[in-house]
Amino acid sequence: MAKLSVVGLGPGDYENMTVRADRALKSCDTIIGYHVYVDLVRERYPDKKTLTTPMTREADRCRMALEAARGGENVALVCSGDSGIYGMAALVYELRGEDAEPEIEVIPGLTAACSGAALLGAPLTHDFAVVSLSDRLTPWETIEKRLEAAALADLSLVLYNPASHGRPDHLRRACDILLRHLPGERPCGIAHSIGREGESMQLLTLSQLRDAPVDMFCTVFIGNASTRVLCGRLVTPRGYRDV
Amino acid sequence: MAKLSVVGLGPGDYENMTVRADRALKSCDTIIGYHVYVDLVRERYPDKKTLTTPMTREADRCRMALEAARGGENVALVCSGDSGIYGMAALVYELRGEDAEPEIEVIPGLTAACSGAALLGAPLTHDFAVVSLSDRLTPWETIEKRLEAAALADLSLVLYNPASHGRPDHLRRACDILLRHLPGERPCGIAHSIGREGESMQLLTLSQLRDAPVDMFCTVFIGNASTRVLCGRLVTPRGYRDV
Repeated sequence: MAKLSVVGLGPGDYENMTVRADRALKSCDTIIGYHVYVDLVRERYPDKKTLTTPMTREADRCRMALEAARGGENVALVCSGDSGIYGMAALVYELRGEDAEPEIEVIPGLTAACSGAALLGAPLTHDFAVVSLSDRLTPWETIEKRLEAAALADLSLVLYNPASHGRPDHLRRACDILLRHLPGERPCGIAHSIGREGESMQLLTLSQLRDAPVDMFCTVFIGNASTRVLCGRLVTPRGYRDV
Repeated sequence: MAKLSVVGLGPGDYENMTVRADRALKSCDTIIGYHVYVDLVRERYPDKKTLTTPMTREADRCRMALEAARGGENVALVCSGDSGIYGMAALVYELRGEDAEPEIEVIPGLTAACSGAALLGAPLTHDFAVVSLSDRLTPWETIEKRLEAAALADLSLVLYNPASHGRPDHLRRACDILLRHLPGERPCGIAHSIGREGESMQLLTLSQLRDAPVDMFCTVFIGNASTRVLCGRLVTPRGYRDV
């Protein structure tokens, strides 16, 4: 029977795809995904059937992919970044339920925490937490609790979805929570349009981050107590002892 | 002047390298790294000069790489997994200090949190924390604080270095801390030798994880309150609301 591969594309450029993701897309019959991501890859694999859905229709997209695979098509369900982390892999498993078919393969890709960190220098050298500021599926109180926990435990922090339509103040609210526990001078960074045209990065303090303009193409990094700026890069050491 | 690229190899197999990492290794003059990782790639890039160091000589390794780049060699300093996360990128920046040369390029790779998660299913769909149980450079009290913070904030958790030479009881001690706050039936997973010969995975409860044999080739995953096992895979949903 045909297979459903959930494929992490990475940030978007061909170079940051894994060899495995490239091979999966080359060998599939059908590429399914949010139209922005399918458009990213369409030209690289021009002989494939493609199916797209709007942004919030993730369950439809996954059902479409499962159905196509059951019908005999080798499907690549594409995700920006990683296939698991804020990706579609879990939903595919949930919609397949206790059925062992079709076979599901999860192909990991570079999530924005990794690709954005590399753009900024080395902010995530040591223990860190990843938190999404989107409250579409998670109560804001839970998000607040996670931000506080990360700050109090001196974890470096990566914030996904720092801004979304209709919710422009999430980053400011998140920073206000962090500023209860962390100094305003804490080094931070913003990675913008990672792996896409207009890719850029910016270093700033936590106080500045609070009021920084961000959009849905940004990933935000907040250093831990040891993080510093070296030659224009955000650098977090490996631990607390010198070696 | 020549460039120093810090390259994340991913878990170890060619397929899970990024196209960009592959190209960097193809185009460099010299590959430097811990001998196990250089041996992994040596055959794929047979025309390269190679330099290796033992495991705990990371600063020497980075200095060697900086020196070679200053001397005109395009250097690829290779790391297993990602180049930043528990990798060498920060140390390279620290040893270069306020000198703007040689140019440093950080090439991200699949860290074990991503590649191990894909092997287990989809345990990291939503907010998560990554904590290393190695106390070589970090006090055990700090590690404990981070484990507790993650548990209380209902973050999925990834544990790196669950066992190391002379420290066989770290996982048990970590689980004892987690079991103060989490139920013994919490679904967990172990990914072993990701991307290498003998790759395997195992699902078990937190109580079972406490006494599970682990080695330095294992990455441990602890689910959040919503994580469950579906058809032999560890699956964490996207959030708390149905869509």
